[in-house]
Amino acid sequence: FSSTTPIKATLFPGDGIGPEIAESVKQVFTAADVAIEWDEHYVSTEVDPRTNSFLTWESLQSVLDNKVGLKGPMATPIGKGHRSLNLTLRKELNLYANVRPCYSLPGYKTRYDDVDLITIRENTEGEYSGLEHQVVKGVVESIKIITRKASMRVAEYAFLYAKTHGRKKVSAIHKANIMQKTDGLFLQCCDEVAEKYPEIEYEKVVIDNCCMMLVKNPALFDVLVMPNLYGDIISDLCAGLVGGLGLTPSCNIGEDGIALAEAVHGSAPDIAGKNLANPTALLLSGVMMLRHLKLNKQAEQIHSAIINTIAEGKYRTADLGGTSTTTEFTKAICDHL
Amino acid sequence: FSSTTPIKATLFPGDGIGPEIAESVKQVFTAADVAIEWDEHYVSTEVDPRTNSFLTWESLQSVLDNKVGLKGPMATPIGKGHRSLNLTLRKELNLYANVRPCYSLPGYKTRYDDVDLITIRENTEGEYSGLEHQVVKGVVESIKIITRKASMRVAEYAFLYAKTHGRKKVSAIHKANIMQKTDGLFLQCCDEVAEKYPEIEYEKVVIDNCCMMLVKNPALFDVLVMPNLYGDIISDLCAGLVGGLGLTPSCNIGEDGIALAEAVHGSAPDIAGKNLANPTALLLSGVMMLRHLKLNKQAEQIHSAIINTIAEGKYRTADLGGTSTTTEFTKAICDHL
Ligand SMILES: CC(C)[C@H](C(=O)O)[C@@H](O)C(=O)O
Ligand SMILES: CC(C)[C@H](C(=O)O)[C@@H](O)C(=O)O
Repeated sequence: FSSTTPIKATLFPGDGIGPEIAESVKQVFTAADVAIEWDEHYVSTEVDPRTNSFLTWESLQSVLDNKVGLKGPMATPIGKGHRSLNLTLRKELNLYANVRPCYSLPGYKTRYDDVDLITIRENTEGEYSGLEHQVVKGVVESIKIITRKASMRVAEYAFLYAKTHGRKKVSAIHKANIMQKTDGLFLQCCDEVAEKYPEIEYEKVVIDNCCMMLVKNPALFDVLVMPNLYGDIISDLCAGLVGGLGLTPSCNIGEDGIALAEAVHGSAPDIAGKNLANPTALLLSGVMMLRHLKLNKQAEQIHSAIINTIAEGKYRTADLGGTSTTTEFTKAICDHL
Repeated sequence: FSSTTPIKATLFPGDGIGPEIAESVKQVFTAADVAIEWDEHYVSTEVDPRTNSFLTWESLQSVLDNKVGLKGPMATPIGKGHRSLNLTLRKELNLYANVRPCYSLPGYKTRYDDVDLITIRENTEGEYSGLEHQVVKGVVESIKIITRKASMRVAEYAFLYAKTHGRKKVSAIHKANIMQKTDGLFLQCCDEVAEKYPEIEYEKVVIDNCCMMLVKNPALFDVLVMPNLYGDIISDLCAGLVGGLGLTPSCNIGEDGIALAEAVHGSAPDIAGKNLANPTALLLSGVMMLRHLKLNKQAEQIHSAIINTIAEGKYRTADLGGTSTTTEFTKAICDHL
C-alpha cells in the first residue's frame, strides 16, 4: 500500500489540544502505512472577509479540492461580526449529514454495555438557521427552517447508510406533535424514503420519549435520523452512554462525495500543550475517513489497534483514569499495529 | 385533621388508565385522612367552543376557582381544528412553570443511584408557540418565542424553589451559542435573578453538554431551569435515569397561587380497565399538591408509605417487575400509613 500514489486529505489540527491529537493521527497513519498526504490548514488569526470567519478561503477550497478531510477541535474566537468556525465549515461546504457512531469500548466500563448506535443529524438548517430577531422589546424570536430538500437528502443518507452497513432499523426523531409543520415535513420525507427500503425497519419516536428510552435501554435503537438540534442533543447523550465526546468519532457528509471527519469534543485549553490529551475521538474519526475512502483494510487495522490498546488498559490517558501521556498512548497504538 | 373544613381540589382523572390511578389516589388520601373534597371533571366527548378543545369551560373554571388540582393522563383525540388538552390547560390557566422532581426510589434499582434532580420548565412559550407556516412549497418554518416576562417568571420561580427547598445550585440550560437572541434573553433573565440569590450557586450549561453530563454523572446537577422544549426533553431524560415517567411526579405552577399537579405519563390504553396500572406518578403528584397546600405532615406520611411499599418490593405492579394489581398496590400503601 505504501507504494500507491498518496491520497491528498485536508487536515485541520484545530486549536488547544488539536495539534497534539493531530500529531497522534499522523503517527498512527504512518505506522499503518496509510498513503495519505496531509494538506494542513490552521485557523487564522484574522477574519478572512471571503468567509467572514477565521477560516481562510484557501482552507475551505482545500476540502473542496481534496474532497476529504479531518478536523480537530476549533474554538470560535469571541467577538462579534464573524461566524462560528464549525458552522462556517458546515454551511460553506454544504455538509448536510453528520454521522456519529457511539459504541461501547471493550474494557472501558460505563453504566451501559453493548451500546451500538448511529446518530445521523441534519447539519445545515433547522434551529441553526441563524434567523432571529427582536419583535418588540422583551420579545424575541428564532426561526426554525425545515426544507424538503435537506430532509430528503439526510433521510436518503440515513437509509442508505443503514442498508450498506447492515443495520436493521432507522428511527426518525421528532416533535411533530408540537411542531406539526416543520417536524411534520421532516417525518413525511423520512416516510417517503422508508418506503424504498422495505427491508429496513422504520419507526418514528418523539424526542422526549427517545431520550428517556435511550437512557433506560439504548438497545431499543439502531440508526437514528433527525433535524439539526435534536441531533446535537441526542448525539451528545449517546456519547455520554459510552464515556463522552473524547471517545466518539464523527464524519460530516457533503454533496459530490465530500467527507470531513471531525472530533466533536472541545479544544480543552486547560491541558493544551501538556501532552495529556486523549486522541481517541480524532483517531476514530480518521478511521471513518479511511472507510469513506474505501481504505477498509487499514481502517480496520487502526481501529483494532485503538480498541485493543484501550481494552488492555495499560496505556490510558488521564480522562480514562490512566496516567499515560498522549505520546505514550499513541506509541502503544502503533505497537499494536 | 379530618375535622377541618375540606379543601376543594379539582380532579381530572383523565383517559385510559386515568380513572383507575385516580381512584388509587382517592383511596390513599382517604386512608391518610386528608381533608380534600374532590371536584371531578372529565374530558368531554365534544369540543367546547369556548375552549376550542375537549376540555369544557367549566372544568377550566374549576381549577381557577379551587386554585389547586390533580390531573391524570389525557390523550388528545385525533382530528383537526381543536387543541391538545395538555397544552390547552397550560395556556388557558397560564401554568408558567412545570416542576418535575426525579429521585431514585430506594429499592428500585436502575443504572443510577442517588439521583436527586429538579427540572423546572418554562411551560407557556418557546418552541410551543404554535406559530408555524409554509414559506414556499417545500420550505416550512416554526417560530420560537422567548419573552422577558415569561423568562423572568420561571427564573424567579426556580431560584425561589431552590432557596425554599434547601437546594444548592441552579443550572440554566440553553443553546445560546446558536440561538443567541432567544436563549440569550432567557439566560440574561436567569443572570439577573441569580444576582438576587448569592447563596445559590449558579451556572449556565449548553443543552447538548447537559444531556451528556446527566447521563455520565447526574450528581453534577441539582435544580435545572430551561425553556419549554429543553424542559420537555431533559425532564424525560431525568425520569429515565430513575425508571421512567410512571414513577416521577410533576406540578404546574400558575399565577395567583394556582397549582395543577400532573402525572405526565401516557394514558396506556392497552392496559386500561385491567387493574394493572401503576398509580405511583399520580400519587407522588398528589403529594406535591399537598405540599403546595402546606399539608406537609400528610404529604410526608403518604410519600413515605409509597416509597416504603416500593422499597419493600412485595407489592409492585407489572411495570416494576411485580405481579400486583393496582388495587393490591394501593392497599399496600394504605397499610403502610
Ligand atoms: C459548537 C457547537 C456550535 C456545535 C453545535 O451545536 O452543532 C457542537 O455542539 C457540535 O455538536 O458540533
Ligand atoms: C404530550 C405533549 C404535548 C407534552 C409536551 O410536549 O409538553 C408531553 O410530552 C409533556 O411533557 O407533558
